[in-house]
Amino acid sequence: MFTHQTHIRVRYAETDQMGYVYYGNYAQYFETGRVEALRSLGYTYRNMEENGVMMPVTHMKTDFIKPALYDDLLTVKTIISTLPTVRMYFTYEITNEAGILLAVGETTLVFVNRATQRPMRCPDFLYAKLEAFIKSK
Amino acid sequence: MFTHQTHIRVRYAETDQMGYVYYGNYAQYFETGRVEALRSLGYTYRNMEENGVMMPVTHMKTDFIKPALYDDLLTVKTIISTLPTVRMYFTYEITNEAGILLAVGETTLVFVNRATQRPMRCPDFLYAKLEAFIKSK
Amino acid sequence: MFTHQTHIRVRYAETDQMGYVYYGNYAQYFETGRVEALRSLGYTYRNMEENGVMMPVTHMKTDFIKPALYDDLLTVKTIISTLPTVRMYFTYEITNEAGILLAVGETTLVFVNRATQRPMRCPDFLYAKLEAFIKSK
Amino acid sequence: MFTHQTHIRVRYAETDQMGYVYYGNYAQYFETGRVEALRSLGYTYRNMEENGVMMPVTHMKTDFIKPALYDDLLTVKTIISTLPTVRMYFTYEITNEAGILLAVGETTLVFVNRATQRPMRCPDFLYAKLEAFIKSK
Repeated sequence: MFTHQTHIRVRYAETDQMGYVYYGNYAQYFETGRVEALRSLGYTYRNMEENGVMMPVTHMKTDFIKPALYDDLLTVKTIISTLPTVRMYFTYEITNEAGILLAVGETTLVFVNRATQRPMRCPDFLYAKLEAFIKSK
Repeated sequence: MFTHQTHIRVRYAETDQMGYVYYGNYAQYFETGRVEALRSLGYTYRNMEENGVMMPVTHMKTDFIKPALYDDLLTVKTIISTLPTVRMYFTYEITNEAGILLAVGETTLVFVNRATQRPMRCPDFLYAKLEAFIKSK
Repeated sequence: MFTHQTHIRVRYAETDQMGYVYYGNYAQYFETGRVEALRSLGYTYRNMEENGVMMPVTHMKTDFIKPALYDDLLTVKTIISTLPTVRMYFTYEITNEAGILLAVGETTLVFVNRATQRPMRCPDFLYAKLEAFIKSK
Repeated sequence: MFTHQTHIRVRYAETDQMGYVYYGNYAQYFETGRVEALRSLGYTYRNMEENGVMMPVTHMKTDFIKPALYDDLLTVKTIISTLPTVRMYFTYEITNEAGILLAVGETTLVFVNRATQRPMRCPDFLYAKLEAFIKSK
């Protein structure tokens, strides 16, 4: 299992008139979580796209447990527990500064060859990096 | 079962550099779907909040099937198939002008008394409206 | 002078915890205003991009007079008062259902050849359409 | 003159299909700039709101010079050059990692008493903090 933590300060723009972070904005926090997780492995999503590989999201699920509030300094814990194939699975846990669990999410992304617009296997470099953390089944 | 359809034009702001609608923005399309579904029943979410009832989202799930593109005129079909209790369940189907299914989603919302910040049952007026369409079990 | 009006319903996502539309979201309303103005002339921005012309925004100015509120049905009046050259100027007036002026904005966009990434003159078709409404100086 | 710098990583969500940061999203970067500038003075906007003072934006102006791109690590320089009265003026300069100036903006915010919804003078604590940096005229 590979885990990584990053921090995000809630913007005023991200709140709604209920005084909570709008539920659609957690997708951005998950994005930051997985992008920073990949960066910590020496792999940037920007570089992957420049090399012709895109990763659209095909599935997302979120449970909103407690509201995130304006100016909260959130911790996004990103968890990768299975080795990627054509798909890559991420799980996320968002907590506030008091350590209270606010939301749990999961996303599935698919590797797509930009030129052919067809699915492809996870690039070798990323797979090799993750193999050091995750046992293949 | 109660169903309602509304239309949304994809904004440039909602696309990302992949040329697709960013996955986090579908939450706004679902919001529009359910708000317009309620309006068609003679019930506005604005009015509900003014009367002290909030409806935070506690769960969301989305399958992204094909990308929505800039300037697409989307149809959001909102489906309510069970009578609300303390919770209300919505399902959504998003199609483009060619009738192609782009995304399917579901959300769970909970009725909350704004003053006490505690969960409460669905307001009677809304429940009565929905009873005309949905059989209780 | 060419003017066009379109309507936008304020989304919950667009409010912030002050209970107002977040100031950054007016840019999307202006976008809708100018895109629908062009569409009314038989010209879609989507089609323009497909034909290799982009229109990035180089300047924006907004005065926020009164707050737009959740569920407001806004009118965006888009005004084009000078013929486009390499640049195109739009002015916007946003009012609510009571006819109260909420915001006034202006944007400057530049025509860019997508292939060369260099500025270019306004496409002839669009220029000709606008000439019917706007006197050249 | 008081100046403060903070850093923002561009999110994928913030790009559009032109491959640039959408022009409306700079408002969020300016927000982060001024909020972190205030925090560096020992003053959080969250705390100000909790004490009954709101700061809606009444004016914004932005010049977009070069596009900010996905994953850019931006520097937002926030400049306060006049002492606040009922209004507070902020200027912003956004540069990328290469030090290239991407955008320049300015905003005017007004202090509002939340209870009365009327304009009020800048709270004393903040004024005193800024007096150490800015000469009154």
